[in-house]
Amino acid sequence: MSERIQADYVIETPDDPRQAAEAMAGEQSSGTFVSVPGETPELRERSAARVDSLTEEGEVEAPSLPGRMTGARYSRARVTLSWPLGNIGPDLPNLMATVAGNLFELRQFSGLRLVDLRLPDDFAGAYPGPKFGIDGTRRLAGVDKGPLIGTIIKPSVGFGPEETADRVRTLADAGIDFIKDDELQADGPQCPFEARARAVMRVINEHADRTGKKVMYAFNLTGEVDQMRHRHDLVQDLGGTCVMVSLNSVGVAGMLGLTRHSALPVHAHRNGWGYLSRAPMLGWDYAAWSKIWRLAGADHMHVNGLQNKFSETDDSVIASAKSLLEPMFATKPCIAMPVFSSGQSAIQPPETYARLGHADCIYAAGGGIMAHPDGPAAGVQSLRDAWDAAIAGTPAETYAKDHPALARALKKYGA
Amino acid sequence: MSERIQADYVIETPDDPRQAAEAMAGEQSSGTFVSVPGETPELRERSAARVDSLTEEGEVEAPSLPGRMTGARYSRARVTLSWPLGNIGPDLPNLMATVAGNLFELRQFSGLRLVDLRLPDDFAGAYPGPKFGIDGTRRLAGVDKGPLIGTIIKPSVGFGPEETADRVRTLADAGIDFIKDDELQADGPQCPFEARARAVMRVINEHADRTGKKVMYAFNLTGEVDQMRHRHDLVQDLGGTCVMVSLNSVGVAGMLGLTRHSALPVHAHRNGWGYLSRAPMLGWDYAAWSKIWRLAGADHMHVNGLQNKFSETDDSVIASAKSLLEPMFATKPCIAMPVFSSGQSAIQPPETYARLGHADCIYAAGGGIMAHPDGPAAGVQSLRDAWDAAIAGTPAETYAKDHPALARALKKYGA
Repeated sequence: MSERIQADYVIETPDDPRQAAEAMAGEQSSGTFVSVPGETPELRERSAARVDSLTEEGEVEAPSLPGRMTGARYSRARVTLSWPLGNIGPDLPNLMATVAGNLFELRQFSGLRLVDLRLPDDFAGAYPGPKFGIDGTRRLAGVDKGPLIGTIIKPSVGFGPEETADRVRTLADAGIDFIKDDELQADGPQCPFEARARAVMRVINEHADRTGKKVMYAFNLTGEVDQMRHRHDLVQDLGGTCVMVSLNSVGVAGMLGLTRHSALPVHAHRNGWGYLSRAPMLGWDYAAWSKIWRLAGADHMHVNGLQNKFSETDDSVIASAKSLLEPMFATKPCIAMPVFSSGQSAIQPPETYARLGHADCIYAAGGGIMAHPDGPAAGVQSLRDAWDAAIAGTPAETYAKDHPALARALKKYGA
Repeated sequence: MSERIQADYVIETPDDPRQAAEAMAGEQSSGTFVSVPGETPELRERSAARVDSLTEEGEVEAPSLPGRMTGARYSRARVTLSWPLGNIGPDLPNLMATVAGNLFELRQFSGLRLVDLRLPDDFAGAYPGPKFGIDGTRRLAGVDKGPLIGTIIKPSVGFGPEETADRVRTLADAGIDFIKDDELQADGPQCPFEARARAVMRVINEHADRTGKKVMYAFNLTGEVDQMRHRHDLVQDLGGTCVMVSLNSVGVAGMLGLTRHSALPVHAHRNGWGYLSRAPMLGWDYAAWSKIWRLAGADHMHVNGLQNKFSETDDSVIASAKSLLEPMFATKPCIAMPVFSSGQSAIQPPETYARLGHADCIYAAGGGIMAHPDGPAAGVQSLRDAWDAAIAGTPAETYAKDHPALARALKKYGA
């Protein structure tokens, strides 16, 4: 790996694209709009960002974003910039200002989106990466193959600790592998973290003692760094096997405050992702954004689901999930486990498996489990059946002939 | 103040706007797309978000953002939602998931932007807010009235510690009030934080001993929480009077990790703001976003500048700066000092003052100081002159008749 940080962007500009890309490289390193005393050739040599490549990708008539510079037409291009590692060192928080700082506001651009990142190996040495990933998660959840079948406590908020634990008992009895808090539920007065963790782990531990299966529960410990460390330790002391954090609520330094300390898989929730990504010519592609968090220690990362209840296309969902499996470094691949959710039921597994190419994921459903006509146990079973059929290459309808939970689910949730 | 959290949004939807707003309230509290066992009337009463108001604002023909739901026309509306404080308690990181979480992705919306926030008084008790603000900053900088005239070390990166200190000497001798690191410069191998802080503070302390004026230098300590605390302590030990942090690089939990500990003004850099704000119907308005950081302890906040080198309009810049002066709570107003920068010179002060209505700001210029034909001291003087004229209500051209630094600046930087 080179000793330079590389970032890929798509840009849109009324200016000459190469000139705009050079301005971007300048603004994000040693250059400025006017020449500055002290900007010597030697300084530029050691510090300037470079335009490594630029591929024009056609023109559009209207700008994607309003701005101060207009033109008769707007050129699009894919650009790769690189920076000397010496500018910031292997430093994740400060990487943000370099690859994703002021450049989005530059007047030259009517569109600018960060699509991917490649980091020098020194970053691998400086950060934890996922400590559990897919294998560690499977080990702790006791699921050797196929997806972890999961769900989310609903209603998202409103339950107290004991009501939450009651719901967990129902789900554990239904055979679930994984449960998570909703991201709206952390440590509110109606459901304090500690009381919830104790009540839930009592149920999970009893269930494990009785059946040998310990359900993985992702406790949402989102908070300040000291709080998160304290909550993590409580979960660990209680025998819990996972903690969850809202990435955009804590930030990179907040996340590292947790992961430098953590000894449990970190379930990374992406809520807020919409404001970072929904304008096609602004913000972040998931592949770039998720690399920051993978390196910072995310074991599980949310990717939405096929035919979801949100705005994202299925192609985008699959691209996100696949990106998590691309190694970041030879010595530390930082593979995170994709988490599918949002409107999932026994309907989507065949296409999910076919397009993803593997079953190393957490597959979470809400109504797809709780609203199954034969109850939650049949709901969980229908999801397992759907994945078993997909992995075996058997059409769901065929498989359903001697798998009644799946048969009923296809009827209920099918179009 | 009510015991509910309130947030204002602009929305755009192909759906009925009220129905879409109700879905948003449901998704962000106790509701879901399907009815869920356990969602009792009592639970809804204590936990449901409410649509407090909705004002329709016309229709558009094309959606602002792509999505899964389309229509013949798209309605725009301004919506206020509220949540019971009991859902999350006075908790800033978890406020993010509630007011700015999954809602941006909801299929009902072809546009959704968070424009303002109002928080119950319990939040004031739970967070530090600015510890210095305008008065504390003036006291430490020794500037009783008028703006602090400031600048940024340029080139942004490439200087070592001694070269940085040399530049600081030039600027201190020129009479500057305030200097900041560039956001690209934190603790890179070519300019390590500690060596830079020691070299710069040696110059600033010598200058203060000689002249009685201690230049305020905002050291960019962006990093992990333990690093930021350590760097803060170093600056304080060296007699420094300000630290700087890149908000989007550290996140809310990272910021609080610093501000729970800090005893110096915190200069908050907004780099990355473009990806949060540049699509008009997505993301954040500055008034809402800055309140999170004001409460978390930002003393100074960047607002760009009039006729800036970026994409933002002058109206937006002024609205941002004014929003920082709006009290957040009766007992803890959390007023932050606006920082103007980007392409500023002696040209913009009259309009800036006229539109802002006060001079309680940091006014930073780069080329507007260093490129003044008579040198940096004249550059600083030209900015002071321009502000003095504006505050006195004297046209700059008149004032320039017996203020040569201003006269030369108007000629150099004028259109």
